[in-house]
Amino acid sequence: MEKILRIDHGAAFPGSDAERVLTGMEGLLRKSSDVLTAGALEGRDGFGWFDLPDTSPEGIYEEVSWLLGFDSVVQIGIGGSALGNIMLSRALCHPYYNELTRNERKGPRFYVADNADPEGTSAILDMIDPSGTAFIVASKSGATAETMANFLLFLDRHRRSGTGDPRDNFMVVTDPREGALRAFARETGCRSMTIPSSVGGRFSVLSPVGLLSAAAQGVDIDSLLLGASAMKERLARSDTIQENPACVMAAAAIWNFDQGRNMLAMMPYADRLESFSEWFCQLWGESLGKNSWGSTPVRALGAVDQHSQVQLYSQGPDDKLFLLLTPTSRKDLTMPEAGETSLKSLGYLSGKGLGSMLDLEAMSTAAALIKAGRPVLWSEVPVIDAYILGSLVFFFEYATALTGIAKGLNPFDQPGVEQGKRYTYGLMQRPGFDGDAAEAQEHFSLARRNTAAI
Amino acid sequence: MEKILRIDHGAAFPGSDAERVLTGMEGLLRKSSDVLTAGALEGRDGFGWFDLPDTSPEGIYEEVSWLLGFDSVVQIGIGGSALGNIMLSRALCHPYYNELTRNERKGPRFYVADNADPEGTSAILDMIDPSGTAFIVASKSGATAETMANFLLFLDRHRRSGTGDPRDNFMVVTDPREGALRAFARETGCRSMTIPSSVGGRFSVLSPVGLLSAAAQGVDIDSLLLGASAMKERLARSDTIQENPACVMAAAAIWNFDQGRNMLAMMPYADRLESFSEWFCQLWGESLGKNSWGSTPVRALGAVDQHSQVQLYSQGPDDKLFLLLTPTSRKDLTMPEAGETSLKSLGYLSGKGLGSMLDLEAMSTAAALIKAGRPVLWSEVPVIDAYILGSLVFFFEYATALTGIAKGLNPFDQPGVEQGKRYTYGLMQRPGFDGDAAEAQEHFSLARRNTAAI
Repeated sequence: MEKILRIDHGAAFPGSDAERVLTGMEGLLRKSSDVLTAGALEGRDGFGWFDLPDTSPEGIYEEVSWLLGFDSVVQIGIGGSALGNIMLSRALCHPYYNELTRNERKGPRFYVADNADPEGTSAILDMIDPSGTAFIVASKSGATAETMANFLLFLDRHRRSGTGDPRDNFMVVTDPREGALRAFARETGCRSMTIPSSVGGRFSVLSPVGLLSAAAQGVDIDSLLLGASAMKERLARSDTIQENPACVMAAAAIWNFDQGRNMLAMMPYADRLESFSEWFCQLWGESLGKNSWGSTPVRALGAVDQHSQVQLYSQGPDDKLFLLLTPTSRKDLTMPEAGETSLKSLGYLSGKGLGSMLDLEAMSTAAALIKAGRPVLWSEVPVIDAYILGSLVFFFEYATALTGIAKGLNPFDQPGVEQGKRYTYGLMQRPGFDGDAAEAQEHFSLARRNTAAI
Repeated sequence: MEKILRIDHGAAFPGSDAERVLTGMEGLLRKSSDVLTAGALEGRDGFGWFDLPDTSPEGIYEEVSWLLGFDSVVQIGIGGSALGNIMLSRALCHPYYNELTRNERKGPRFYVADNADPEGTSAILDMIDPSGTAFIVASKSGATAETMANFLLFLDRHRRSGTGDPRDNFMVVTDPREGALRAFARETGCRSMTIPSSVGGRFSVLSPVGLLSAAAQGVDIDSLLLGASAMKERLARSDTIQENPACVMAAAAIWNFDQGRNMLAMMPYADRLESFSEWFCQLWGESLGKNSWGSTPVRALGAVDQHSQVQLYSQGPDDKLFLLLTPTSRKDLTMPEAGETSLKSLGYLSGKGLGSMLDLEAMSTAAALIKAGRPVLWSEVPVIDAYILGSLVFFFEYATALTGIAKGLNPFDQPGVEQGKRYTYGLMQRPGFDGDAAEAQEHFSLARRNTAAI
């Protein structure tokens, strides 16, 4: 059976022996894996993502055929209700998807309204005809301020165009339990799909949150789910922690953090995975950043960041674990020979593949980092397609959850975001948050005590 | 005179007094400012960016009128020859610029070929007609592997279409001294512009490297340069380090690094500045990451990253300095009232501005971080336009260089990227690098000693 993910970790524990570190952590990792598997089996809160790879996407296909009738699809959501959508689109669709003609594209144009920046929302309004647009409003709680704000704006524009009936253009994706979005669907009769209650936002990309918009752009969501399912099965069948790449990643993250390396640089060598890093950063940061623990995920892209961050990576402080990720096969372009005498010095490029060069650059960066004594996880996938991407999604969800459990953290909550939310509600004069407004002002005024203006 | 940048730093030195920290560092910062000014006056190597704001863009306008005759412009460059271009486009053009019709756009469609990923290059080839495209090939050395590789590919495609004469479609931007690109321009007679020798790649955005493609998209480069010039003048006129925001930023960066905070999170609250952070990350990381020093720049975007990274920022380790950046005025959108009973709970939004909410979210995040004892630099600009963006470019270049000089580093070199380059040349069998190939293989093989595959 062909391997779908390989992680070489001989250089992930500088000054120590990989085998010995893993053996030392074996008990902890085995116990943590058991907790993870048991939590999933028992259907405990937060563990619902475990079941997503094996959930039939049939209901989704019905809605997708509805989506395909529109000129544009706008995903209204933020964080876990947007990053996965962007990631799937960027990884599996044409990089200039929206610029293609309708015949070249496999579906409607696609926009994401995530931020509460009026410039972003206005720009989308410039591009769409509200009556020819499907709006997917995704919020687990049905109350996320930025999402609801954008929802109100698009709903209003829609009302002033065409039929104005939300049933024609709106679909909500939210928790099955009561919330404003669920109530809205009941009141108006608009379409709705469900984020299972036990699936948190950042673990929801393989639910309708991520699958609907991806399928509408022609992404093969069956393969995506099959890949995730294959990864789930293989992880369950890994007998030793040494041959389980999720255990290896968790061990490397924990060991290196303990050695004072408080960052994890995720550096794929593939344009298609640029937004994958961003999706991973939420998963890792929000799941593990608690109790004063948590390595900070740092996004990088090879080879671009060799010309931006590698100076710092190799000669700055020894404070990062590097995860390089490359596909072992690419559709390549062969570099031609130049006729000009002035370009003779480029002879070393001619006849070689651009992608082969990128592969060698990844290897060179790894070698240079290893030479500098920096810890490197070298990971390979056979190719970047829907199946492998699905397997990577499940892999990183699993590895993240495993790391959290091993550190005694709850990887499925995010108590630290509540404070800022309450302050915003207070400052927005939402009833019941008066005290929060005063407290926000008080802390903020500390910053104002000293000012340099120019 | 209206202020163009304000940095509140009363919460940037937790557990200490801002005034006292600054006074303690006054001698160092004053001396470093003097070194910077003197280096610029004497025209020392690396200091050339100091003169760019006051360099007339006239020669650029001539070339821009040529660029405007094309359907598309492709910038071929990487790192400092691409990040600034993307930044200017994203900050000052319509977010969906390429999707607009030619009448709505102010210039040709714009693509950046930076990475050596064949998928990215193929995608651009899908979108352009080589004979209707202007190619700007930017490389200071005229030898950057990724840039030259893409150059060869586009040159070949061009040769096989239309006239095939490089003079019709190619322009090189490179060092005035000899290099392959300079020689190519001489041999073929194609257009060329100059990156002054004393301007490093990451400091080159206000040279033809960044200005050509920006002006071709309708960016007001006069205002950009005027803003940069105004910032330069104001920084020179700041009498005390307490009223100089660049000194404040350098002091906060150095002091917090010494306290064990090895990251600087750059978090603008404006979609338009998303790529600005990426540009800044190269500037900061590559200038300061040396001699085992250097805080790692972390990109974040408000309010999006409240739903991704703020959990980690507020409850993870206390290992970051935060720089929040907001415009004090925005073109706003007013949130309407919803008719539906189910949306009554959103009453707190109705009638308020989406941008006002974003401002309050920034303030709330700052307040929550300050409450958690995390260091915050709160910065404000009056608006985001070409003038202010130019001022920010110069400001961050100055603050970065100042920080490096204060730490005794050379902010203008990047010796740490050479190792990986030599390894790649070796592995690509470029003559003269045989030993490097063997050494790369040797270090890389360390990673391969242990493998987990699934």
